[in-house]
Amino acid sequence: MTSQLKSFIEIAQNSDFPIQNLPYGIFSETPAGTRRAAVALGEWAVDLAALEANGFLNLQAGETYFNQATLNKFIESGKANWSKVRTELQTLLSADHPELRDNSELRQKVFFKQSEVTLHLPVHVPGYTDFYSSKEHATNVGSMFRDPKNALLANWSELPVGYNGRASSVIVSGTDIVRPSGQIKLPTAERPEFSACRKLDFELETGFIIGKPNKLGEPISIENAWDHIFGMVLFNDWSARDLQQWEYVPLGPFNAKTFASSISPWIVTLDALEPFKTHSPVQDPQPLAYLREDHSRNSYDINLSVEIQADGAAQADVICETNFKYMYWSMAQQLAHHTIAGCNVQVGDLMGSGTISGPTPNSYGSLLEITWNTTKPLTLANGEQRTFIQDGDTLTMKGYCEKDGLRVGFGEVSGRVLPAVQFNFTE
Amino acid sequence: MTSQLKSFIEIAQNSDFPIQNLPYGIFSETPAGTRRAAVALGEWAVDLAALEANGFLNLQAGETYFNQATLNKFIESGKANWSKVRTELQTLLSADHPELRDNSELRQKVFFKQSEVTLHLPVHVPGYTDFYSSKEHATNVGSMFRDPKNALLANWSELPVGYNGRASSVIVSGTDIVRPSGQIKLPTAERPEFSACRKLDFELETGFIIGKPNKLGEPISIENAWDHIFGMVLFNDWSARDLQQWEYVPLGPFNAKTFASSISPWIVTLDALEPFKTHSPVQDPQPLAYLREDHSRNSYDINLSVEIQADGAAQADVICETNFKYMYWSMAQQLAHHTIAGCNVQVGDLMGSGTISGPTPNSYGSLLEITWNTTKPLTLANGEQRTFIQDGDTLTMKGYCEKDGLRVGFGEVSGRVLPAVQFNFTE
Repeated sequence: MTSQLKSFIEIAQNSDFPIQNLPYGIFSETPAGTRRAAVALGEWAVDLAALEANGFLNLQAGETYFNQATLNKFIESGKANWSKVRTELQTLLSADHPELRDNSELRQKVFFKQSEVTLHLPVHVPGYTDFYSSKEHATNVGSMFRDPKNALLANWSELPVGYNGRASSVIVSGTDIVRPSGQIKLPTAERPEFSACRKLDFELETGFIIGKPNKLGEPISIENAWDHIFGMVLFNDWSARDLQQWEYVPLGPFNAKTFASSISPWIVTLDALEPFKTHSPVQDPQPLAYLREDHSRNSYDINLSVEIQADGAAQADVICETNFKYMYWSMAQQLAHHTIAGCNVQVGDLMGSGTISGPTPNSYGSLLEITWNTTKPLTLANGEQRTFIQDGDTLTMKGYCEKDGLRVGFGEVSGRVLPAVQFNFTE
Repeated sequence: MTSQLKSFIEIAQNSDFPIQNLPYGIFSETPAGTRRAAVALGEWAVDLAALEANGFLNLQAGETYFNQATLNKFIESGKANWSKVRTELQTLLSADHPELRDNSELRQKVFFKQSEVTLHLPVHVPGYTDFYSSKEHATNVGSMFRDPKNALLANWSELPVGYNGRASSVIVSGTDIVRPSGQIKLPTAERPEFSACRKLDFELETGFIIGKPNKLGEPISIENAWDHIFGMVLFNDWSARDLQQWEYVPLGPFNAKTFASSISPWIVTLDALEPFKTHSPVQDPQPLAYLREDHSRNSYDINLSVEIQADGAAQADVICETNFKYMYWSMAQQLAHHTIAGCNVQVGDLMGSGTISGPTPNSYGSLLEITWNTTKPLTLANGEQRTFIQDGDTLTMKGYCEKDGLRVGFGEVSGRVLPAVQFNFTE
């Protein structure tokens, strides 16, 4: 699809959602109303269930795919259908196609202002895995907590390190975050104390959504891996650094991460991202065969940013600007590695990139790195200082691609932090 | 329910499934047949869907709970219903109650020989967490891989260390296990190699199944934790030790565990285990308040064993005998800790105990410990030696409680190891 394609709907120049994008989501007209599938077009949600009910997007006689509370059924129907629906929608929504353009009654049923509806988690997420694939991030963390001279552990350059996350607490943008509590062990204390988290952080990530499963015991080869990916989202992997530091040896992060993981409501398909393919960093050493692929077009040029807005502040401060293209391990490499021992992935699974940090301090993807674990506090435009996130702060991540006058974006993932639960323990 | 209660069905003396047990499972008459709920009674599966269709076990007018492919709907209906169904079944199946006993037509519809049906995964498992709560196991592993003098890490005695497992690869007893492949780094090698796992191991565990969810951001207190547990299963957390040793820093085990995790088909309820309550070890230091409970009756006296049978061997060798009561952290403590930061658990979630090792070598719950990482090979009755699991080996775990002439058991969780996938890489 060329950047010349135009919709009969007017789309703002800087919109993330031109007719070339058409990311998928789930919406309802009221918070508790009936959920159904949509694509985003400019400021509109285009109701796919309404289109389906009116004779469009009919993938299989007698079957419906879009009057569903999640996208899973549509995604499961297969890659051929993803392309078919995309092509049909681009025709139906184009300026030179009269069928929907000139049918005002149907348009009434199909177009809803995004600002007037509720957006929900777009997929049921049966499994969530988080990787750790930004070399800059892993180096920063290793320098802070282990040894600056040997910041990267030996396995990091050989495989995309990852761990199982908690799928039940994956939530959609806009959901408030309750500050977690738990055990914190101060360096000077003999024993841990029970406390609300004092080092609450964000992690700027993207995630990809599995579109095609594999069977247990049957790994996905790196050649086939891309066909198993439906699309991408923005992802904030909220992290409680003080809980994490105490709990994470030897089995990895647990309560420090399981309290909330936020994704953006619109899934941008790989088809929409195709024009923005780019190379990933040269890998040295060359990976083992099962992870080896041509790195000249296995990444995407996606601009990413993070904003923080204090409670009552007039505006948000941009505190990080980075790019997905810095990722050392590709999504195909992550997926090939995930399944090489036989693990099965499922439609709707979320695979987090790991924090995406760039090479310079203004491109670091977490407050831990930006403030170098509180040693370099941030000063916001309103004069307040931050080392970590305070109650009332809203964190917002944005992402978009831009090339040859075409902008394809992700919208945002945003969340506001509420005070911790009050407990009545007597220690 | 006293141990005097008797069924009109004859139950072998050493059966795991007297009328005092009645564990829940899912079966079908043929492998691809219609799945529905059952309880085990002696050598029989008692079809709860058939009972429900014939006017019994009616929990709510117009609703059915047992003609389902998983137990989730029944479990979700609440603890009051668990007790109600148990009581009704114990009456219906008792020797002095004629309603089912004297209705041979109905009995034909309701009783199926377990050996002639297919048993399935009893619940849909939306989330799986594995703990690490046996002090003896953690000490053994710490001695082998870290420092024998400081085998337990500092956090181990303060909180039930746990990590997120991979729910998609939780499988039912009887499912074959494909030997996993992946990266192995030999101490003498400069780089890792790609290989089939050479140190395939079992981990003897139990698991508990969540019966009642909590909301995100609303922790389950230790006082309420027991009410959130539906029952227990036997659990084999298959482990690839060589993959694990290379991959697990700093984010924990991943491919070493995600290829398969086997559970027994029958869920034994806490009601059935009640007569076997016992104390857990004294905890020193005393845990923080959110983990504190009376330890005099927060564990269960469950005898556990592991057998290995080589391909073609006439019989299995018992290679481990231990007991659940050695567990340092209770299930309530595990659940309170799991949710203290706000994580939500869901009906059907599986919570693994971690490997259950006792104090003596014959009670160690993994080959890693039994053979002390290959330094003390096992000799089987047929003369073969084992350091880790070989292709064709079948591992079987059993568990039962016994007191005052009453035996309540779990049946078994069993799995046979198949050779690794053949890959065609050219390194």
